[in-house]
Amino acid sequence: MAPEKLAERLRTVHAINVTPFREDRSVNYDLLERNIEFLIANDLEVIVPCGNTGEFYALSVEEAKAITRFVVETVNGRVAVLAGIGYDLGTAREMALAAQEAGVDAVMVHQPVHPYLMTEGLVRYYAGIARSVEIGVVLYVRHKAIDREVLSRVADLENVLAIKYAINDLPRFASLVQSVDGPVVWVCGTAELWAPFFFAAGAEGFTSGLVNIAPEMSLAMLAGLRRGDAASVRAVWRDVAPMERLRAKNRNGNSVSAIKEAMNLAGLPAGVAREPLGELNEADRQELIQILRSWGRLGQNASCSKGSIS
Amino acid sequence: MAPEKLAERLRTVHAINVTPFREDRSVNYDLLERNIEFLIANDLEVIVPCGNTGEFYALSVEEAKAITRFVVETVNGRVAVLAGIGYDLGTAREMALAAQEAGVDAVMVHQPVHPYLMTEGLVRYYAGIARSVEIGVVLYVRHKAIDREVLSRVADLENVLAIKYAINDLPRFASLVQSVDGPVVWVCGTAELWAPFFFAAGAEGFTSGLVNIAPEMSLAMLAGLRRGDAASVRAVWRDVAPMERLRAKNRNGNSVSAIKEAMNLAGLPAGVAREPLGELNEADRQELIQILRSWGRLGQNASCSKGSIS
Repeated sequence: MAPEKLAERLRTVHAINVTPFREDRSVNYDLLERNIEFLIANDLEVIVPCGNTGEFYALSVEEAKAITRFVVETVNGRVAVLAGIGYDLGTAREMALAAQEAGVDAVMVHQPVHPYLMTEGLVRYYAGIARSVEIGVVLYVRHKAIDREVLSRVADLENVLAIKYAINDLPRFASLVQSVDGPVVWVCGTAELWAPFFFAAGAEGFTSGLVNIAPEMSLAMLAGLRRGDAASVRAVWRDVAPMERLRAKNRNGNSVSAIKEAMNLAGLPAGVAREPLGELNEADRQELIQILRSWGRLGQNASCSKGSIS
Repeated sequence: MAPEKLAERLRTVHAINVTPFREDRSVNYDLLERNIEFLIANDLEVIVPCGNTGEFYALSVEEAKAITRFVVETVNGRVAVLAGIGYDLGTAREMALAAQEAGVDAVMVHQPVHPYLMTEGLVRYYAGIARSVEIGVVLYVRHKAIDREVLSRVADLENVLAIKYAINDLPRFASLVQSVDGPVVWVCGTAELWAPFFFAAGAEGFTSGLVNIAPEMSLAMLAGLRRGDAASVRAVWRDVAPMERLRAKNRNGNSVSAIKEAMNLAGLPAGVAREPLGELNEADRQELIQILRSWGRLGQNASCSKGSIS
């Protein structure tokens, strides 16, 4: 896909699919295929394997490559695929090349996990990845060290198409949108709870883990944001907020487990989460059930799930 | 080495060696060997390859394994070796087994880089690593989610010998030391600037990157802490603090680059740092030169280093 056409397509909801695991913690590709088909059937147009909701950091590098290949084959050109890559520069380049070979539209670069970050080194890191491939590159930013200077210089690279920003500091984000040169698409990286405010600052897309269970809510929010319909955005936000707040509990520890448990309860099986994640505690699980009930989303298999439904 | 004997040896300075790189960013094993020999010649008794000062997160998994093998061969039993390992559970186990095979005394487990952490999942993560090897295990803790419950349950495992704590919250640390069961050695993970205060709370060792340039200062602090000589500890602390504060600048961005640049200036060549790190900015470099001068530590090759010495 030509870069400008792909950039246009990134102005939407980025669906961060889950990675279903069996009880023995192996990847369950059957359930992964069902998850991807669900997202496509529900009109999502950008799918992101190996994101944080996909438990990227619980996958080995080889598993992440295999999952990306599988998702590209499953999608088969119907929607755009952005694959998460990361780690040290050598490994990130290797993953980017493998993703390009697999046929993704772009890579989403998780920020370096290195505890120390410097301006010049960050620019070299991102440029080193971007220059090693011909496909699109999306930056996933969660650390303030990745500042205006870093982003301006990296956004200058031809195949850097979008910046997914996940620091909930709106003035900082608004300032970046106004001051970073280069025709990048700005994407809210902290999902529905924050998307309306990021859009007010210049975002044109947002990421979502919620799409794995309630895609029409995410798309309704997007539609409201696109047509500037504040009342409808607020209505969706009010419905979505309890789920996103539950996910944010325990310093975001619940983030993935709440989505997977919700999927299991709603008849969209997603298996278990891998270490260092685990199951929701019972209080959070009961809260999740109440939320799903309020959405009319408790599946027929809910009663089979372990623990009682109050 | 028997676990109880090794645990006894961990009550000391943990020398986090650097990983020297050439200009093309390849590992410079000649300089690595010189760095290790320098540490041994200067009486360090615990050497930790693949720590954060060793730029663990700028190494590929295979490079980290190779560096660990090289350090074990170089050390050849003269001192204890703790090798850094990490990432997803599968990769961490693979690295732990490779380190055991190489002949390390213990592995130091970098905390999971996963953005979401849960109690049960963390316990399973650490236990999954500890149970896969027979050598010692040291936890490196930097996140509050790794709390009393997680640490108590993991410290119960026979081969978990020490906890290296790197959150600068002394009441929290003191409370953990008093409430976590199990005969673990507590180690200050934030080096000389914080070691006196962690010792007041129960630490019996501290980590150091400074040892790569000024080992006698670190060992003088240790000696003062061991004999409860507050005046001598304060004297060393006062001398060391400017360097550690310089390393802490730019949200710790300077941490490794300042050590490597200091080594280069002092005639202990360490090469360059890998992305996402880079060189110190000129103001910080001049400050570093002043510190080295005050220590009488400017080497003969200082004038060859790029930039002028003011």
